Amino acid sequence: MTRFRLTIEYDGGPYMGWQRQPHGPSVQQAIEEAALAISGEETLVYGAGRTDAGVHALAMAAHIDIEKSFTPFRLGEALNAKLRAEPIAILDCREVEEDWHARFSCTGRAYRYRIVNRRAPLALEAGKAWRIPRELDHQAMDEAAQLLVGKHDFTTFRSAHCQSDSALKTLDRLAVRREGDEVLVEAEARSFLHHQVRSMVGCLALVGQGQWRRDDLGAALEAADRSRLGLNAPPEGLYFVEAKYP
Amino acid sequence: MTRFRLTIEYDGGPYMGWQRQPHGPSVQQAIEEAALAISGEETLVYGAGRTDAGVHALAMAAHIDIEKSFTPFRLGEALNAKLRAEPIAILDCREVEEDWHARFSCTGRAYRYRIVNRRAPLALEAGKAWRIPRELDHQAMDEAAQLLVGKHDFTTFRSAHCQSDSALKTLDRLAVRREGDEVLVEAEARSFLHHQVRSMVGCLALVGQGQWRRDDLGAALEAADRSRLGLNAPPEGLYFVEAKYP
Repeated sequence: MTRFRLTIEYDGGPYMGWQRQPHGPSVQQAIEEAALAISGEETLVYGAGRTDAGVHALAMAAHIDIEKSFTPFRLGEALNAKLRAEPIAILDCREVEEDWHARFSCTGRAYRYRIVNRRAPLALEAGKAWRIPRELDHQAMDEAAQLLVGKHDFTTFRSAHCQSDSALKTLDRLAVRREGDEVLVEAEARSFLHHQVRSMVGCLALVGQGQWRRDDLGAALEAADRSRLGLNAPPEGLYFVEAKYP
Repeated sequence: MTRFRLTIEYDGGPYMGWQRQPHGPSVQQAIEEAALAISGEETLVYGAGRTDAGVHALAMAAHIDIEKSFTPFRLGEALNAKLRAEPIAILDCREVEEDWHARFSCTGRAYRYRIVNRRAPLALEAGKAWRIPRELDHQAMDEAAQLLVGKHDFTTFRSAHCQSDSALKTLDRLAVRREGDEVLVEAEARSFLHHQVRSMVGCLALVGQGQWRRDDLGAALEAADRSRLGLNAPPEGLYFVEAKYP
């Protein structure tokens, strides 16, 4: 048995999310079926993060165990060949130790959220960003974002379906910048709660539009109460960017 | 009657091209049908350039004449509402003089061609760029590109279906640069021949892969012979970027 680490790019649009679901297609299932077709083996693919329906990945990390002998290069090529009809690409495939685990060995996760700040609908970026027509004050957003950095009870920014034992998390970085008509939010932490990035971005968007002040964001965090959430940003602007390992 | 200048973004993927075609959908037809639905008027939309099937636009310029009274803002909003199901967005709408013509008043056109230089298939950028697995020497491409700048007979780089009276054109700028794993080619001229940008990019890609030298490109240009074309780049990497007016 050899364990392989995969780096995966995908367009989350057509999927119910990363994780296998009974009701529709998932990224995990697509890769597992490709692996089955190649190796004849029923295997599980473990990802560093479980992205929601519609959320994309520039470089999801995952691992897979295969009994049959493959070089990493051949396995990556064969998976890509089988995945040709899907918007999923294996960017990198390498052999790792058998105790390396995409999820449990991961010491840091980075997400990016793309907002296109313009009035006109999205044509080329449809399904790839959140459009906000009203002008965003990205500096006010970045200032407010710093309130969320550090160790906090993120209950306000957590989905009701979150399975994490604790809402206490340490947010290492939350930064907002503008590139032309795009406003980009970068978030980094060891791990995130379910919907945490989208919930933080939703509230920052309220700040950017002047509907919330910095203090409103602080009060929502302090309250540790999901009903105080201002807005949950839609999934299509969110990208899993990087999984970090020691 | 009022003439409006439109700035249009579109994903060329689902269309036979800009220009109305008997056999399938076009960007022009979609906008004309939207205008008809709003105004009740059969109008023609004139574009600065006629992009091929699969070619995109970040900012195509066009004009349209409407009898019914509209403010530019309302017309733009109404067109976007009607075009909601299409990957076409009106970025800007403004009133212009009646002798302003999107095609004939245009004094410069700029295109960008996106190459993603990597082995893995495209997931997020599928249909939005040309993937070339072999490593490209973008500096060699940029050096060779300078041979094409200036006034030349571009017969080699012209489609057999080109309707232009003359193959003599002045290329104002052709520049190649790298941004991470993307290689971008920027082309500017008063006007281009049919397939000219894609043909130039195809040959530059041969130079970048070491299959052609700079001199081979020069000889192909000199020959003024379509059969000397090395390669025509696929449409999905091409973007109409800007139309210039006095």
